[in-house]
Amino acid sequence: MLAEGIVRESGRVASGGGKPRTLVEINPGALYAVGVQLGYESMTFVATGAGGGIVARQLVDGASLDSPEKVTDRLVAQFDAFVDAAGIPRASIAGVAVVAPGPLSADHGAILRSPTLRRWEGFSLRDRLSERLDVPVLIDNDAAAAAVGEFWTRRVPRTETFAGIYMGTGLGAGIIIDGALYRGASSNAGELGHTSVDLDGEPCFCGNRGCVERYAAPAAVLHQAREQSGRLTGLGLAFEDHTVTQDFDRLARAAVGGHPVAESLIATSARYLAAAVVSFVNVLDVDRLVLSGPSIAVAGSVYARAVRERLMESAFARQSHGVRVELATNPRDSAAIGAAALVLQSSVSPGHGPQLIRPN
Amino acid sequence: MLAEGIVRESGRVASGGGKPRTLVEINPGALYAVGVQLGYESMTFVATGAGGGIVARQLVDGASLDSPEKVTDRLVAQFDAFVDAAGIPRASIAGVAVVAPGPLSADHGAILRSPTLRRWEGFSLRDRLSERLDVPVLIDNDAAAAAVGEFWTRRVPRTETFAGIYMGTGLGAGIIIDGALYRGASSNAGELGHTSVDLDGEPCFCGNRGCVERYAAPAAVLHQAREQSGRLTGLGLAFEDHTVTQDFDRLARAAVGGHPVAESLIATSARYLAAAVVSFVNVLDVDRLVLSGPSIAVAGSVYARAVRERLMESAFARQSHGVRVELATNPRDSAAIGAAALVLQSSVSPGHGPQLIRPN
Repeated sequence: MLAEGIVRESGRVASGGGKPRTLVEINPGALYAVGVQLGYESMTFVATGAGGGIVARQLVDGASLDSPEKVTDRLVAQFDAFVDAAGIPRASIAGVAVVAPGPLSADHGAILRSPTLRRWEGFSLRDRLSERLDVPVLIDNDAAAAAVGEFWTRRVPRTETFAGIYMGTGLGAGIIIDGALYRGASSNAGELGHTSVDLDGEPCFCGNRGCVERYAAPAAVLHQAREQSGRLTGLGLAFEDHTVTQDFDRLARAAVGGHPVAESLIATSARYLAAAVVSFVNVLDVDRLVLSGPSIAVAGSVYARAVRERLMESAFARQSHGVRVELATNPRDSAAIGAAALVLQSSVSPGHGPQLIRPN
Repeated sequence: MLAEGIVRESGRVASGGGKPRTLVEINPGALYAVGVQLGYESMTFVATGAGGGIVARQLVDGASLDSPEKVTDRLVAQFDAFVDAAGIPRASIAGVAVVAPGPLSADHGAILRSPTLRRWEGFSLRDRLSERLDVPVLIDNDAAAAAVGEFWTRRVPRTETFAGIYMGTGLGAGIIIDGALYRGASSNAGELGHTSVDLDGEPCFCGNRGCVERYAAPAAVLHQAREQSGRLTGLGLAFEDHTVTQDFDRLARAAVGGHPVAESLIATSARYLAAAVVSFVNVLDVDRLVLSGPSIAVAGSVYARAVRERLMESAFARQSHGVRVELATNPRDSAAIGAAALVLQSSVSPGHGPQLIRPN
């Protein structure tokens, strides 16, 4: 029974609502979970109580081009500082989940081949962290984590086919079917960013061509912005590798404020995303989508509107039912919050996919 | 337990293999199922024993432009003639499943809006058939049925994420997760044909643009062939609405035989299919694919090779695992065989999706 109801179990722990079930292993008041979103530019730490409420949050420097060893050192030090500052007793931490862009090796707890975390291949972050931390450790995909978090906090009915679309530096998705995260063959399902929207389009790091990520994600939008930088002066765009998030936020803010060039760039990004989402929905026949991630924090409503409109015009099953398109309430933190949800879920019922590794 | 193991239950009935389970309701020797693939050009009738073996098969004229009422009359008459000729006693028929291209309304047992079956909208084929036939009736998607049939006859392990890609006049897919057909919100999942491979491409009947079906499916290939008809003389292509399947078979045969123009047309179709399949696999993280349907009957190996190669070059999770790409052994009949499998499955454990409606 527990294995069947993975996500809803943590939902149950979180909300106290839903179909009542007996949970024997957890004392909701006594446990905390820590979620870490590991990115190139920043790491977000979040701690939640077993009830799902956020008890602490911190944003620190990301992996950048540092070696995985050096980043692991920082992560360990930061974790210690974070839980100490939050006053969370070690013994009450159910675990820490570090989430990052795919592809991942669920078996080895490693990041495989990410355009922003290139040097991480073959490095088992999970094993190295589990040697260094005295709490259970889990490594998972950031978009999958965000979807679990959104599903959980929204108390989505288990019968709904639900997907979380996540835009950080890349673009991904988490799919929730019958109340459980859909993992696929190797826990690499949901790679919406690598839907080709132009089969002869731009080559992508993944080996494919025309991937939507190459058009819709922040780096691509800023690449286009750079070509029109003369018409974007005054927005304070730095166009550096480590300022992508910052630059994109500025551009999105200008777009929302009515700057015509910025508006057109964000609208183009949204148009690409919407095209990929229609194909995704046609394959999965989804009831509800939530958009989350730092890159939709500013201009989320532009993206939501574009996706909603394109689905209404062209989703294959639109005569049967509409697709609800919602925005995350806390888009910048949704992956880290979802990571904490994964810890609670995994500590209750392990299920498929990456597992919590307990310290020796 | 039964509701959980839908497909595997019928697999169990079919093969006698796999994990043994006690099935109380079925006497394998005593029951037959009838599957009908309803298409524009032809209808395929198949009868299987409860063991899954084909006991009878017949190909008759399709729906063409006839009214749904007229086609229903023919279908009823043909069903009677078919079971009589096969010597199957009425009382031993578990049901008949009619499968057609989507979108369908599972609630109403109706075909909604198909480019080749345009006049069927609002006509509940299921209810009309169930008034006329003295056996239970089920309406479902042809590609979904074909996937179930392939999963079943191959004895695919339940832990595999499996998909059947079906190319008839259109292009679709059935997705099998944890041993059960994945239905989505409205039983319209798996519409691979409406993956846009060019967001500004050709408009599709579905309302979207650049759908892969508009490039890879037979009608599209023949449209391109027509433009080069001077270089295709001697192949006997008629280019009529009712000769699409025949023409496509001829073209595919010429391609396999080395005719350069035909070869290039089929290769282009395969290239488009492969591009859409990579996006599909990136979202679903599939273990195994089977290609089936009448349109891959002749040049299936060209399609399989194109899909296999593109997946090896550019599937997102290729470092984690390969994707097996197989061909149906009986591609022309796979939807009708799968339809019969759906009847057996539905009569054992109803599950989600379209249901067998028993006669009054």
